Amino acid sequence: MEVAQVLHMKGGMGKTSYAKNSLLQLKVISLTKPIAEEAMTDLYCNKFPTSIAIADLGCSSGPNTLFTVSELIKLVEKLCRSLNQQSPEYKVFLSDLPGNDFNTVFKSLGSFKKNLGNEIMGGFGPCYFNGVPGSFYGRVFPSKSLHFVHSSYSLQWLSQVPEGIENNKANIYIDKASPPNVLRAYYEQFQKDFSLFLKCRAEEIVYEGRMVLTFLGRRSEDPSSKEGCYIWKLLAIALNDMVLEGLIEEEQLDSFNVPMYTPSPSEVKLEVIKEGSFTINHLQTSEVSWNAYDNELSLSEAFSDGGYNVASCIRAVAEPLLVSHFNEGIIDEVFRRYQEIVADRMSKEKTEYINVTVSLTKKI
Amino acid sequence: MEVAQVLHMKGGMGKTSYAKNSLLQLKVISLTKPIAEEAMTDLYCNKFPTSIAIADLGCSSGPNTLFTVSELIKLVEKLCRSLNQQSPEYKVFLSDLPGNDFNTVFKSLGSFKKNLGNEIMGGFGPCYFNGVPGSFYGRVFPSKSLHFVHSSYSLQWLSQVPEGIENNKANIYIDKASPPNVLRAYYEQFQKDFSLFLKCRAEEIVYEGRMVLTFLGRRSEDPSSKEGCYIWKLLAIALNDMVLEGLIEEEQLDSFNVPMYTPSPSEVKLEVIKEGSFTINHLQTSEVSWNAYDNELSLSEAFSDGGYNVASCIRAVAEPLLVSHFNEGIIDEVFRRYQEIVADRMSKEKTEYINVTVSLTKKI
Repeated sequence: MEVAQVLHMKGGMGKTSYAKNSLLQLKVISLTKPIAEEAMTDLYCNKFPTSIAIADLGCSSGPNTLFTVSELIKLVEKLCRSLNQQSPEYKVFLSDLPGNDFNTVFKSLGSFKKNLGNEIMGGFGPCYFNGVPGSFYGRVFPSKSLHFVHSSYSLQWLSQVPEGIENNKANIYIDKASPPNVLRAYYEQFQKDFSLFLKCRAEEIVYEGRMVLTFLGRRSEDPSSKEGCYIWKLLAIALNDMVLEGLIEEEQLDSFNVPMYTPSPSEVKLEVIKEGSFTINHLQTSEVSWNAYDNELSLSEAFSDGGYNVASCIRAVAEPLLVSHFNEGIIDEVFRRYQEIVADRMSKEKTEYINVTVSLTKKI
Repeated sequence: MEVAQVLHMKGGMGKTSYAKNSLLQLKVISLTKPIAEEAMTDLYCNKFPTSIAIADLGCSSGPNTLFTVSELIKLVEKLCRSLNQQSPEYKVFLSDLPGNDFNTVFKSLGSFKKNLGNEIMGGFGPCYFNGVPGSFYGRVFPSKSLHFVHSSYSLQWLSQVPEGIENNKANIYIDKASPPNVLRAYYEQFQKDFSLFLKCRAEEIVYEGRMVLTFLGRRSEDPSSKEGCYIWKLLAIALNDMVLEGLIEEEQLDSFNVPMYTPSPSEVKLEVIKEGSFTINHLQTSEVSWNAYDNELSLSEAFSDGGYNVASCIRAVAEPLLVSHFNEGIIDEVFRRYQEIVADRMSKEKTEYINVTVSLTKKI
């Protein structure tokens, strides 16, 4: 499986699309916004640049795609007003894998600019949007062309399923039951990928440029701890049930593993230090409920079902991946079962994702 | 009708898509290639830039989208070899209206790069691709960010249908039967649009940067001469027949006009001189048969029908425009009739499009 060819959030604007099922990711971006804003404030107030190139890596397609960019532009414009500076020119690079639904993003830019203009008294500097297709595990931008890089809930995706983990069998990710070589292979793939990511960005970001990255991660140093693996374990339960009932072939399940790694803060820190191009300003964890609609007031019937919400969120993220390995016909059934399993677990225990956020500055 | 919202070549890869019906446009690009190559040779040999930013405006989606860019990269690499220079870095900006099918373009980039690598002995410099959605009748790129701008068969499209041409009635474009105010309104819209285009590009292109533009145009100074209008007149005949048969409402046809202007070389020249930011290196006309498959050897049955080829080409270009004004249900029938009318005319007279190409250099 070529991850770069297969991995993408589910496109379009339909009921099971990522655009319609990405409130969780929006919550995470909102939660970590103060860190991005602090970094942008530093960057802007340090040199009052007349042009700011901002890249969002793993921009996806939907309401979240432009959220960070709009918050950053609003912030810079506020700084300009209070410091009596002229608005800079913004170069915005929205980047994701080539399978991402850029068409939907591009069609929304007109109304986005209009709304942003209404929100910012006195308007904002000229803003040039680019869609940039490519894997961030390789060069995507020209040398020294970016001032600010943001990426949220993308870097936990690996460039490939680790090699040599055929013995992970009925598991689809790291699990308590996984053999030690599986844990090792996953960690090594993470190290290799994240270090390459840092090296590429180091070439693309200007001196003193900033980068704020949020991973789906874990707090524990144990990669098989529940917090990092549970959401996939429950999907594995649904898939294994379907194997037992003859709906999926055992070999098919045995050969399926999710190309993801949920790192701990110290694993992230270690790679940054080893790679050497960036200094760490902040490294922190936060958590967010599996059910993004928790604590939301006045929910319509449709969103009051936590199991449904969580299953829809994972489906929007994982459907293209599953379809490429299994056949499309099983998808509805997998997620029907998954929803039940998830709902049951959510009623019995606290279910949270852990976010690891790191804020970096490019050294000379 | 908001032209920028509605105008786009037909997306996807289906039988009636632009991607499958754009050989004509490819022929035009090939025909005018020497002019683009001369401009790029001048640009490169003048300063041996280490980074070249190339924009294709109206890139569309299909085999033509990357053709010019690949030819220009091949040329620069050849120059590098012969002059013993290092390959530059290429920044490629593929730009079109937001309705363009960028997804299909982005998915093809992987194999494009691979094929180009196979074609160029010793490989080529790093190449960064960007999709840039927006109307070229406005700023699309940051100031002084482009070295080379190319646009083929796009600039004849106007930013809007000229105002005040309600009396053009059964005509859908300029026609011998059009009242004088219609001709004047079309020409004024062209002047306004092309002059704005030049002004925007003048801000985006660096000093001594180059621009090569090809219009679907005409040789005659008379805007109602057959060479510039005939292809639309025949479509008007099909539409009027359907009005007579009650398949289309008369008022609907009366209020439809194509947002296009096919300028003469002197009309193009006049706007360039008036705007004042560019010097003209070349201005020339060429012609290409309506049927792009004319003179092609060993045609499969499917492409030996000239009427079908021409109707398919115009359909791929005009279908979204027609759908937005009429209802979708009439499209197949319109083009069935159009194909017959076109085939009849082609058997009786010489049918050619006229291309107007201008090569410009940015003044200080």
